[in-house]
Amino acid sequence: MSKWVRFVAADGSPALGRLEAERIAEYRGELFAEPVATGRSFASHEIRLLSPCTPNKIVALWNNFHALAEKLEKAVPTHPLFFLKPGTSVIGTGEPIRRPARYAGKIVFEGELGVVIGRVCANVAEADADRYIFGYTCVNDVTAAEIIFADPNFAQWCRSKGFDTFCCLGPAIATALDWASARVVTTLDGVERQNYPLSDMIFSPQALVSRVSGDMTLHPGDVIACGTSLGVGSMKDGANVRIRIDGIGELGNTLAG
Amino acid sequence: MSKWVRFVAADGSPALGRLEAERIAEYRGELFAEPVATGRSFASHEIRLLSPCTPNKIVALWNNFHALAEKLEKAVPTHPLFFLKPGTSVIGTGEPIRRPARYAGKIVFEGELGVVIGRVCANVAEADADRYIFGYTCVNDVTAAEIIFADPNFAQWCRSKGFDTFCCLGPAIATALDWASARVVTTLDGVERQNYPLSDMIFSPQALVSRVSGDMTLHPGDVIACGTSLGVGSMKDGANVRIRIDGIGELGNTLAG
Repeated sequence: MSKWVRFVAADGSPALGRLEAERIAEYRGELFAEPVATGRSFASHEIRLLSPCTPNKIVALWNNFHALAEKLEKAVPTHPLFFLKPGTSVIGTGEPIRRPARYAGKIVFEGELGVVIGRVCANVAEADADRYIFGYTCVNDVTAAEIIFADPNFAQWCRSKGFDTFCCLGPAIATALDWASARVVTTLDGVERQNYPLSDMIFSPQALVSRVSGDMTLHPGDVIACGTSLGVGSMKDGANVRIRIDGIGELGNTLAG
Repeated sequence: MSKWVRFVAADGSPALGRLEAERIAEYRGELFAEPVATGRSFASHEIRLLSPCTPNKIVALWNNFHALAEKLEKAVPTHPLFFLKPGTSVIGTGEPIRRPARYAGKIVFEGELGVVIGRVCANVAEADADRYIFGYTCVNDVTAAEIIFADPNFAQWCRSKGFDTFCCLGPAIATALDWASARVVTTLDGVERQNYPLSDMIFSPQALVSRVSGDMTLHPGDVIACGTSLGVGSMKDGANVRIRIDGIGELGNTLAG
């Protein structure tokens, strides 16, 4: 199992790296096409992490956990229910979430598992899905909550969740994860707010890759955000939200005022 | 005013071209960064057109024409209401629309004006919007209509409209268009089905670029599909839909069975 990151090195250029014990080994080439070690490595204080991939699209699930569906009294869906977040919404760990210029309302965090696609896939069978999954990362699916239902005729999922900086990804992509025994733990200013088991998912990562790849072709670097469960809440300006999944790491971002 | 296209030349490689009288003059470089004429040109029967740009995201409007809002008895929105179509949904004129493998239901055409972004823009003022608009194209916003409201709790705009081949763009990008005096004319197997004036738009192209660029950063090649008006309908397998906007040209696609 490897953990891959993207980072800004001392010379300012973005680079690819693999976590090795306490250091980050630099690689060149493309993450999804067998990159090669350069032989250089850095201590974590020497570099600044970026989002571990740069998706063209993020397919983000709604109503994908039994516990939340039960609490909201929603039926279990027969097909994954999703909206799209644009690539322009992506930031990495440590980067600020920025409040939209024309929005003064409530901003909500949602800790999630993200599935990172490694190969072009369309209409993949669930049994074959692992061949198309490069790995797993943490996601904060940030939402301008008061926008979703501001218009009585049209739920604005893409707008409320599509602002620049509203898709936090990272810190790394773990190429293997025993997701069925992992938990998503979200803290707000150090206080635990979410702690839910991924085994409670309605559509597993493999089922999602199969079903969603039947809806649209997925490309390397695209991310499926698996949806959230109990405990989402709002973050005030200046608040720090950290999402941890053991086996991946901890994604932390602060809402800039 | 120029009309730009992308095409496949005889050697199979994609190329950039400008329409000149009856011929297509080949250009090299990037469409949005002052491409240079190669001196070669082709007759239209020597080449096959592609989509005129390759957007990372398509911002697609719902409820943006007064006539359709009135018919559906929907209030005029105070901000553009949109969903996202992924870049993987894009095809050019003449390419087949493909029925999704796992969907046997109704497929609907929607003729629309598309605004093609030419420069990175965020929070642009409406008065400055023209500086960020590269040009205009025709859009067929194809929809698997029975999916939208298949789940009672969640309207599936992105899924129903995001399938591969469900965003037809073309045939060209016109760098200038007197949109306020233009009409969108849609024919289904030669029979006129839509013929509506763009002057009936609720949010103009310039208002859309301003408002949407406040919701997410737009990049060169991104497309805003301005929404449709009266006359949308379903297309059976084998049907040919053509969308014409004078000043741009005619976009034609057939639904492959």
